[in-house]
Amino acid sequence: MINTLYLPELREMLSEGNEEELREFCTALNPARTAEFMEGLSASEAWRVLQFADPSVREQIFNFFEEEKQREILETQDRSQVASLVADMAPDDRVDLLQEVDEHIVEELLPLIPFEERRDILRLRAYPEGTAGAVMTTEVAKFSENLTVKETLDVLSREAEELETIYYLYVVDDSDHLRGVVSTRQLVTALPRPDLRLSELVETDVVAVNAMDDQEEVTQTVARYDLLAIPVVDKERVMLGIITHDDVIDVMREEATEDAHRIAAVEPLDDDYLKTPLLTLSRKRGMWLMILFFAALLTAIALDQYEATLKRVTWLVLFIPLVISSGGNSGSQSATLIITALAMGHITLKDWSRVVIRELLMGLVLGGFLSIIGYACAVILADTAYQALVIPITLMLVVICGTLCGSILPLLFQRLGLDPALMSNPFVAGIIDIAGILIYMTVALAMIPMEG
Amino acid sequence: MINTLYLPELREMLSEGNEEELREFCTALNPARTAEFMEGLSASEAWRVLQFADPSVREQIFNFFEEEKQREILETQDRSQVASLVADMAPDDRVDLLQEVDEHIVEELLPLIPFEERRDILRLRAYPEGTAGAVMTTEVAKFSENLTVKETLDVLSREAEELETIYYLYVVDDSDHLRGVVSTRQLVTALPRPDLRLSELVETDVVAVNAMDDQEEVTQTVARYDLLAIPVVDKERVMLGIITHDDVIDVMREEATEDAHRIAAVEPLDDDYLKTPLLTLSRKRGMWLMILFFAALLTAIALDQYEATLKRVTWLVLFIPLVISSGGNSGSQSATLIITALAMGHITLKDWSRVVIRELLMGLVLGGFLSIIGYACAVILADTAYQALVIPITLMLVVICGTLCGSILPLLFQRLGLDPALMSNPFVAGIIDIAGILIYMTVALAMIPMEG
Repeated sequence: MINTLYLPELREMLSEGNEEELREFCTALNPARTAEFMEGLSASEAWRVLQFADPSVREQIFNFFEEEKQREILETQDRSQVASLVADMAPDDRVDLLQEVDEHIVEELLPLIPFEERRDILRLRAYPEGTAGAVMTTEVAKFSENLTVKETLDVLSREAEELETIYYLYVVDDSDHLRGVVSTRQLVTALPRPDLRLSELVETDVVAVNAMDDQEEVTQTVARYDLLAIPVVDKERVMLGIITHDDVIDVMREEATEDAHRIAAVEPLDDDYLKTPLLTLSRKRGMWLMILFFAALLTAIALDQYEATLKRVTWLVLFIPLVISSGGNSGSQSATLIITALAMGHITLKDWSRVVIRELLMGLVLGGFLSIIGYACAVILADTAYQALVIPITLMLVVICGTLCGSILPLLFQRLGLDPALMSNPFVAGIIDIAGILIYMTVALAMIPMEG
Repeated sequence: MINTLYLPELREMLSEGNEEELREFCTALNPARTAEFMEGLSASEAWRVLQFADPSVREQIFNFFEEEKQREILETQDRSQVASLVADMAPDDRVDLLQEVDEHIVEELLPLIPFEERRDILRLRAYPEGTAGAVMTTEVAKFSENLTVKETLDVLSREAEELETIYYLYVVDDSDHLRGVVSTRQLVTALPRPDLRLSELVETDVVAVNAMDDQEEVTQTVARYDLLAIPVVDKERVMLGIITHDDVIDVMREEATEDAHRIAAVEPLDDDYLKTPLLTLSRKRGMWLMILFFAALLTAIALDQYEATLKRVTWLVLFIPLVISSGGNSGSQSATLIITALAMGHITLKDWSRVVIRELLMGLVLGGFLSIIGYACAVILADTAYQALVIPITLMLVVICGTLCGSILPLLFQRLGLDPALMSNPFVAGIIDIAGILIYMTVALAMIPMEG
């Protein structure tokens, strides 16, 4: 979806070195749109255009470039100019970006970045990926509770352009311990009383997360309390930074996609689908496909044990795919329902007995349904109406096995401290495939005499 | 996860009618926490506690109650008191809630709600579910561009408590056409020049959505531009309302869960997993399970056509589950990757040829892998090494069929204006099951001579 509308004009301006028009282009639209219009430009063309923007706007436009172009600019353009751009970027964004850039180039860039900013980068880089610390930004408004409304507004007025968010004013003590929060809404409402101190407005019951908390927990907390931003603290409740709504939305989209991929037995991609190299993609898919393949191979080995039965009662073969897919489908329904309910916080481990009883009942109901239709078809294809009973009995047992496996496995994974989305579905599929064959053949052997 | 810590104390306060302590309870914590502590109370107990909160706080605490309790309060408590609570609620929240309440009770409540608020409720109720109009709120700050910075701040100071968000100030003309936006950040930065007019600050290039746009598009736009809120306009660009970050997060969580459910062939639930009645759950699951069952029945009918072949070359039976599940797994990987990439905006319909070529290549690579292992096993179980070749050839074709179906179907659904998550995976599974059998048997017949 490259916007090519403005591309020829832009290139012409560049070749003519038309300073006035290029300046106009960089300021006329909002930075996100400006970046969109530049999508078709190469990294070095885009960088040349950016030279005509004020530093603060430059950083904003750059921020909306695709990651690939950002990386290329950092790696190929003049180091000292690039370093000053990096210094202007939001602390969380630049750390994310530097993670993508060639390590040698990062080492060349770091010494060119002012001390304060450099220290900040090094500190944020120390947090493991997926933690609150790795997502947070450190440009946050901290205030002493002795400030008056008027004084606070003055500080805010001076610093607003620098700060990631100005909508919550965090109140800290002398050693940066988080004491409470005043919303800009409260501050604005209090304007008629300019001498009121923040201590009289402050809400001390403030929801915060720990820097080492999982980013998924952070999004759940933000969603639960309808927050614009959440403070990140250490064990002593010293305020380290904040995570803002836009980062929460990004994390959420990322996690939802990862979960969907895991449900379909794909190792989550680090990049967009089209940008993932085919080799990486085939590794991330092949790995799971292989595991599932080996699970399915077990079915071949199991069936081999029953060759005599299948030779004698050949109609049994016809229903093999039906039996396996009924178990697999009901199992994947259960697993997905439980995984999403856990992710949304709708159920917790404590609910396990209710969940298992529900799924047992679901298995009885759904298995019952399928058994009735299954029997109707089996009567036509089987040798006798009595033998055909193997199908409904098998279906009932297989569907119950599916719903139980599908509900218990994610709960078990959660209990073990693993992400329940991780591997639950592939595991359920593998177990059900083999269990389906074993149930089917056992029921058949029990019902159909095999003398001879 | 009911918080029972404070429950006995709360009940005691209520039975003693301890006004002072109950007032303290309602104001000491932030409203979300207060609501959490009240989770164990019945609807009527909770309502009695709320009587001790100021109207604005009462509405906020109520807002964090579970939907079930909110609904029960509206249906069972004093109509006129409830009506005044509804009048205090945010326009979007109350419309959502009234949708859940018994229609007769809504008809009794509406006449008790002040005219302006009532008209607003009726207007919002007219938007179809899933559109921007149905999610938006109408409590939005609109300003004329002739106002000065000082005047704007005064207006804001008076109205801040009423407004859903005060972080974007939308500039409109006399007939409410959206002209632009000034962020509170810009306003605060401009404080040193109090006589500056909004017309000099206004950003006219403002991103807006149409009231009839799909809510999923809205979340994509908000995520793309990192917005706190997005204005909703009609065809003439008259401003109707806004959608705020917290609603975007809610929509996103909802859509992610719905997509995951659809991928696993479950009709999305309207309620939490544990709150969905078993009958509803069995309908939402049974429907798809039935469709998939009928697709799988086709495999039984297809296999029946090949009974003679299977009787003669019995080892072919052993690999039936393996063939089907390899196709199904690779197909569901492809379908999920394409569905999530479409949802994230990483690919569009224009990329179809690239996607299909990639998936064809993936099919070759993954199919190649599985073929090699498959052949190794087939050699052991098949009658001759030549006959065993049926397995790798089949696996190659089935996996390619899986990746192609899995990529083409979601694109086709998108092209037809349908949600690609809707039915793609079940469809892919159904097609692959039957295609797998047909490919397998055709390859077997071609390779193994079947003279009588």
